[in-house]
Amino acid sequence: MEAKLQELKARLGEIHDLNKAVALLGWDQQTYMPRGGAPARAEQLATLQKTAHNWFIADEIGALIETLDGSESEWDYDSDEASLVRVIARDYAKARKIPGELVAEFARVTTLAYEAWTKARRQSDFSIFQPHLEKIVELNVRLAETLGYEDRIYDPLLDQFEPEMKTSQVEAIFDDLKAELLPLVRTISKQTDAVDDSVLRRPYDGEKQWSFGLEVIKDFGFDLTRGRQDESVHPFTTSFSISDVRLTTRVDPNYLPTALFGTLHECGHGLYEQGINLGLERTFLDDGVSLGIHESQSRLWENLVGRSREFWSCYFSRLQTFFPHQLAEVDAESFYRAINRVEPSFIRVEADEVTYNLHIMLRFELENEMLEGKLRIADLPEAWNAKMETYLGIVPPDHAKGVLQDVHWSNGMLGYFPTYALGNLISVQLFDRIQADIPSLRDQIATGTFDELLSWLRENVHHHGRKYIPDELVRRVTGNSLTATNYIAYIRAKYSEIYEL
Amino acid sequence: MEAKLQELKARLGEIHDLNKAVALLGWDQQTYMPRGGAPARAEQLATLQKTAHNWFIADEIGALIETLDGSESEWDYDSDEASLVRVIARDYAKARKIPGELVAEFARVTTLAYEAWTKARRQSDFSIFQPHLEKIVELNVRLAETLGYEDRIYDPLLDQFEPEMKTSQVEAIFDDLKAELLPLVRTISKQTDAVDDSVLRRPYDGEKQWSFGLEVIKDFGFDLTRGRQDESVHPFTTSFSISDVRLTTRVDPNYLPTALFGTLHECGHGLYEQGINLGLERTFLDDGVSLGIHESQSRLWENLVGRSREFWSCYFSRLQTFFPHQLAEVDAESFYRAINRVEPSFIRVEADEVTYNLHIMLRFELENEMLEGKLRIADLPEAWNAKMETYLGIVPPDHAKGVLQDVHWSNGMLGYFPTYALGNLISVQLFDRIQADIPSLRDQIATGTFDELLSWLRENVHHHGRKYIPDELVRRVTGNSLTATNYIAYIRAKYSEIYEL
Repeated sequence: MEAKLQELKARLGEIHDLNKAVALLGWDQQTYMPRGGAPARAEQLATLQKTAHNWFIADEIGALIETLDGSESEWDYDSDEASLVRVIARDYAKARKIPGELVAEFARVTTLAYEAWTKARRQSDFSIFQPHLEKIVELNVRLAETLGYEDRIYDPLLDQFEPEMKTSQVEAIFDDLKAELLPLVRTISKQTDAVDDSVLRRPYDGEKQWSFGLEVIKDFGFDLTRGRQDESVHPFTTSFSISDVRLTTRVDPNYLPTALFGTLHECGHGLYEQGINLGLERTFLDDGVSLGIHESQSRLWENLVGRSREFWSCYFSRLQTFFPHQLAEVDAESFYRAINRVEPSFIRVEADEVTYNLHIMLRFELENEMLEGKLRIADLPEAWNAKMETYLGIVPPDHAKGVLQDVHWSNGMLGYFPTYALGNLISVQLFDRIQADIPSLRDQIATGTFDELLSWLRENVHHHGRKYIPDELVRRVTGNSLTATNYIAYIRAKYSEIYEL
Repeated sequence: MEAKLQELKARLGEIHDLNKAVALLGWDQQTYMPRGGAPARAEQLATLQKTAHNWFIADEIGALIETLDGSESEWDYDSDEASLVRVIARDYAKARKIPGELVAEFARVTTLAYEAWTKARRQSDFSIFQPHLEKIVELNVRLAETLGYEDRIYDPLLDQFEPEMKTSQVEAIFDDLKAELLPLVRTISKQTDAVDDSVLRRPYDGEKQWSFGLEVIKDFGFDLTRGRQDESVHPFTTSFSISDVRLTTRVDPNYLPTALFGTLHECGHGLYEQGINLGLERTFLDDGVSLGIHESQSRLWENLVGRSREFWSCYFSRLQTFFPHQLAEVDAESFYRAINRVEPSFIRVEADEVTYNLHIMLRFELENEMLEGKLRIADLPEAWNAKMETYLGIVPPDHAKGVLQDVHWSNGMLGYFPTYALGNLISVQLFDRIQADIPSLRDQIATGTFDELLSWLRENVHHHGRKYIPDELVRRVTGNSLTATNYIAYIRAKYSEIYEL
């Protein structure tokens, strides 16, 4: 059995190497690649992805899984060995359904689509991106049909990012959220002036923003000998190994939150990647459980730590040393209120905690309609704007601030967006559990001490890598399945206080 | 035949994709990768290189070559088709001799050796690098034996970088050079004070150095939408396609020539890569003929243009606008003399045109001795220092400035260094030809006009990619085989004038 396991791991290791090279090709494309590099990069990505896919779906891997699966009882359920076999068996079953040609087609189409999207967004011209998005929706329909589904065409696409989660479950959770959030947004929209955030909209030197962000994430525990941060149009985190984790962020020299919270957010992802058990390196388990769980980590550090009163009671004076002029007349409490101002706005990644999930529901609904053939791509911008008006009471002035704002579709990913909202919910579920386990947590944050928090996350979440499915992990750690209850309570308490509701 | 050719090209295209991913993995390792990334990077490089090698040596490729080779007469010798078949047949014959395991072993050993070398160099401690170099010499001996040779063990290694060039030819050329250079260096060493280069050793803001270099290479014709420049410990150029060419350079804030001439040098390599016929993209012909020919391009722009009196008659006043304070009391002529000061020094890449080739001869001789088992690796630092004394009359104060200065051995490459000297010789052979073809060349350089020069190089050298072997290209373009004659005449004329010999 041990020999078979070693053989499986050796094969997976080589596929892993290809996948990590793919990750580097993608990282470079979004950070440093000159425009001229795009066509060749498309070919390179297509070849590597197709090869990784073909190696993975090889009959030999199937045979190894079958042999090992039968012997699984030898190993403890939580052991690296049993987990590897269990997770790989699931991945393999899915991957076998997808022809290599479709994988290569995805790579080719999306690499060009990404270039088209950056241009379309720059020029705020949807028509540049439209034909690419049409192909991407088509490819996703083909992918969903290939993977198969019982209930909804959206199910197998969502499942790629959030294993075992169903579209109908997401709808039910979103309904709960909507019932709370829509009235709350309406109420607060009438009194947006109760919080003044003009302090955030001043000239802030970009390099100093960068340095402050780096100082904070070093305090959080991000290891810069095992990772780094670069600039990109759309912030993201990727890793080339557990000890080589790349964050990216972007800087707006006239709006402080962009880089600041972008950095804390990506750091949350990065801490997850750096915290995975090194024994899982170069297996398919050295990754996050799902995008929802991943997002729970980024949101926890960004919002539950980074937008808390305790955090700024400690860090505001440090921020003032970076920007003594801009922050001269400001105190920590008014800064705390400013960064938590609620106001319907156009850009998802800059939305506050109250309106954010509405941006997600909009995308989730539009994706379902596109995939079900109920919405033509040509009509998407109009549908987008209509939903913005319904949910947030505002209409984007141009498509760059509307339908073109996100990179995901250009990367070929439909079914991805709901994981952001799920991540928000999970972050609060986890945080409530951590507060119960570490009663002094808020005091620790108020003194800039994060070791105990990070250790808790490492032990309970990061360490396991991809051993469990999302629902399993959430239940193990919090005792409950995913629910909107904790999030709703958190939002209600925090914003009732800020807005004196 | 056409179908067979397309099949060959499709197979080569995918191998090419892997090779370019390898290039990106290497570029990232030397520019941005955090230290922690090294072990996984070693595995990734090993897997990709091994796979590319295995794909290339597949029987199917051999069969395609055999079929196409027989039909070569259909195509003109210079055609893309005939050239592809001819070059691939040569590559294939060599590659078939090398087992995939050796390729993977090279990748694994050298990735770790590179990390060890950077540490050894930082600490100036040869013992850190020694065990890695021992393995690398061993691997190169195995490689040479595997490839086979008639005369010298060095021949097949040199042949990797300079096809069809023999060790004995290099020795003969080096003997000619030595006869000229050794007495010249001795003469000039007695009057180093005749030229004052203190102006170069002042504080120069790094960012301004970077900007000036970029301005010059844009004038040269380097296309920044199809390439870029980053920082690395050891400057190099690589490409991920003809339209994605990456230069790297390093900046010394207290010594102007490092970044300046490093940038012009790498730009020469980059112009070559960007100038290859786009029709050769994603074949094995979209590369330079050899390292010697590649180096002729970098040296031509660095030295024959960049260290010429004409160039500085135009660019010195622009450099003054970047550094008005440092260059206030300096004129173009004394700057020209300063950057052409001859003085035996420790660092090859910063050596002047007269002493440079002696650095190469030293390495060439030591490599031969190591490979022939005449020199133990443990004794290398001592042998290095002894030769430095013989050739240049100086001994390095530490190993960082001596035996540890170059990256090449850590990358596994023995047989590479002579190509630098060959490049110097070829650059002058070419430049003499260009001056005959473009009589106003020097006047053009004096007005900062490089189009005609670049067009000449594109047409006669760059465009062809890897169609010809070095000797073939040099003969086609200059009418003569490689010789030291032109270089010797150039050095004699230029430095007799500067030093009034």
